[in-house]
Amino acid sequence: MTRLYNFCAGPAALPVPVLAQAQADLLNWQNKGLSVMEMSHRSPEFVGIAKKAEQDLRDLMVIPDNYSVLFMQGGASSQFTMIPMNLLRGKKTADYINTGQWSKKAIAEAKRFCTVNVAASTEGNHFTSAPSQEELNLNPEAAYVHYTPNETIGGVQFDYIPETNGVPLVADYSSAILSEEIDVSRFAMIYAGAQKNIGPAGLCIVIIRDDLLGDVVEGTPTMFDYKVMADNDSMYNTPPSYGWYLAGLVFAWLKEQGGVKAIAEVNQRKAKKLYSFIDTNPFYANPVAINNRSSMNVPFTLVNSDLDKAFLAASEKAGLLNLAGHRSVGGMRASIYNAVEEKAVDALIAFMDEFAKENG
Amino acid sequence: MTRLYNFCAGPAALPVPVLAQAQADLLNWQNKGLSVMEMSHRSPEFVGIAKKAEQDLRDLMVIPDNYSVLFMQGGASSQFTMIPMNLLRGKKTADYINTGQWSKKAIAEAKRFCTVNVAASTEGNHFTSAPSQEELNLNPEAAYVHYTPNETIGGVQFDYIPETNGVPLVADYSSAILSEEIDVSRFAMIYAGAQKNIGPAGLCIVIIRDDLLGDVVEGTPTMFDYKVMADNDSMYNTPPSYGWYLAGLVFAWLKEQGGVKAIAEVNQRKAKKLYSFIDTNPFYANPVAINNRSSMNVPFTLVNSDLDKAFLAASEKAGLLNLAGHRSVGGMRASIYNAVEEKAVDALIAFMDEFAKENG
Repeated sequence: MTRLYNFCAGPAALPVPVLAQAQADLLNWQNKGLSVMEMSHRSPEFVGIAKKAEQDLRDLMVIPDNYSVLFMQGGASSQFTMIPMNLLRGKKTADYINTGQWSKKAIAEAKRFCTVNVAASTEGNHFTSAPSQEELNLNPEAAYVHYTPNETIGGVQFDYIPETNGVPLVADYSSAILSEEIDVSRFAMIYAGAQKNIGPAGLCIVIIRDDLLGDVVEGTPTMFDYKVMADNDSMYNTPPSYGWYLAGLVFAWLKEQGGVKAIAEVNQRKAKKLYSFIDTNPFYANPVAINNRSSMNVPFTLVNSDLDKAFLAASEKAGLLNLAGHRSVGGMRASIYNAVEEKAVDALIAFMDEFAKENG
Repeated sequence: MTRLYNFCAGPAALPVPVLAQAQADLLNWQNKGLSVMEMSHRSPEFVGIAKKAEQDLRDLMVIPDNYSVLFMQGGASSQFTMIPMNLLRGKKTADYINTGQWSKKAIAEAKRFCTVNVAASTEGNHFTSAPSQEELNLNPEAAYVHYTPNETIGGVQFDYIPETNGVPLVADYSSAILSEEIDVSRFAMIYAGAQKNIGPAGLCIVIIRDDLLGDVVEGTPTMFDYKVMADNDSMYNTPPSYGWYLAGLVFAWLKEQGGVKAIAEVNQRKAKKLYSFIDTNPFYANPVAINNRSSMNVPFTLVNSDLDKAFLAASEKAGLLNLAGHRSVGGMRASIYNAVEEKAVDALIAFMDEFAKENG
């Protein structure tokens, strides 16, 4: 059995030890006679799995006690609606920072519920940078400020946490959660679709400060009310229990790796060597401002785009999967999340070097 | 490794061959070098898995071409909101038939969006029957009629499909889908949370007639708009891809069993022998009207309820899991979905017989 190197942006590579554990557990978890996916979510066994997953995430991210951690259904796209529904709290306007396709989707959905003030946008430079703090035109009356710390498609990452002077800060951390240490107390809410650094698709983690729970917009679906979810330990209805279990395995694996600080060092090393290679090889290019380059999603182009198809075919043949850029932008993209090992990046660089020599 | 008999109401037992296939595929699906849960949902491999699952479900249920099949996130509880949001279509009132806890939850959520006419309710007899066609007080001006063909908690099943004289009929088939043949063309919409007869929790199947797509209530979340899901083949965002794959394995397994007609015969046999035993043994009782007894969820009580705890402890020790009734009603419940084999029911009856002899 040969596992290949998977650079998919999401659903993405998972750690091999996690998959091996899931495989071993599949028909009979801890000799209890059934699979985790067959367990009642209210059984002591599953509640134990669920609580351990939450505690491990709290430990990994050093989440303060006055924050709830929710394991919700759906992905970030559902959150785009829940955020205005839950966080407007009587206000009529919210600030959004626009740094790419996911920011734009969040903005489009929010506009259906409130006035959106685009506090900054880098669309003018084709989303190849993040705005600086000084460039943010923040409205002190905004219900909240929303931004995307890491744009999965453009490969653009903020190198600072915006200062909002007391206005609640909301971050779509889907593609960067657990990749580096962050100070959770700077945020009112952090959310992340699981399918990058956490687990399978269909689960979304929400970390929200407790004073922001409740007082939703009229007509909010019960399942979209963070307070209902918090009051019911994310089990108002049957949760996506198997995804929750897998997320727990990923959290336990990450602890074994030394936690977020340790994996962040590996991530920095992986990103640095890939960007260094791209910058020094004239065959390839990355357009993103140096200090906004994502450590998770590395888009790059072949200077001669006529070779794109040949590059993708050859890379797949070489066992390097899912290097095509997002269908909206084209080019290439290597997503190098926590579970993508350093040797995968080394193999990618070796392939890119070889391909450039053969076709340059 | 010993697998035990699992009578959980949901998440519920899955067929052993399905779990074994998932286990074999886990790290490396069809030698492609990665797990299904690591695949891009837009890759040809996953799109193939997704399309085959849909086609197999269409084959199994004989779904007419003018119906869309959606693979959505969340469970039935999210549908309770989506139904009025999508199906009111300018009307102000909807009919709901109240036959138990799940009907009540659907009604409570619908009341937030429209006037609910309770067309019939069996709450007066503690939900121990379903109303007859003649007892339905249907409003010809209703946007739709909603009912629950099988109530998972009360174990109450309709023995007919309501005639609504052209008003769209909507059915929460969560705990009975694929358990018996039904004429899909009688329904405007059928929905079912996956975690009973389909797959793991976090996936919900929606089968909807195409002329009912679109024209949603203002403020409907984009992710709650059936037309958006239909127009995007349920991939407007990243779908719960691993659950979708497992559902596909269950559909393929069901085809191998001979399809819905064949499994329905097994289901009838299982239910008949369990109810017959309960009816003939004075130690046990089931309060549901004979013609409304569920073939999927069999609640029963011990005539001497002081023995409930002892019964549950002894049954678990005997390898019969999850026989406690729902926390809202107490007593016992054996859920005997498609994946619960006849030998499990035989073992349950043998245990119940023995327990009655020892404690009677």
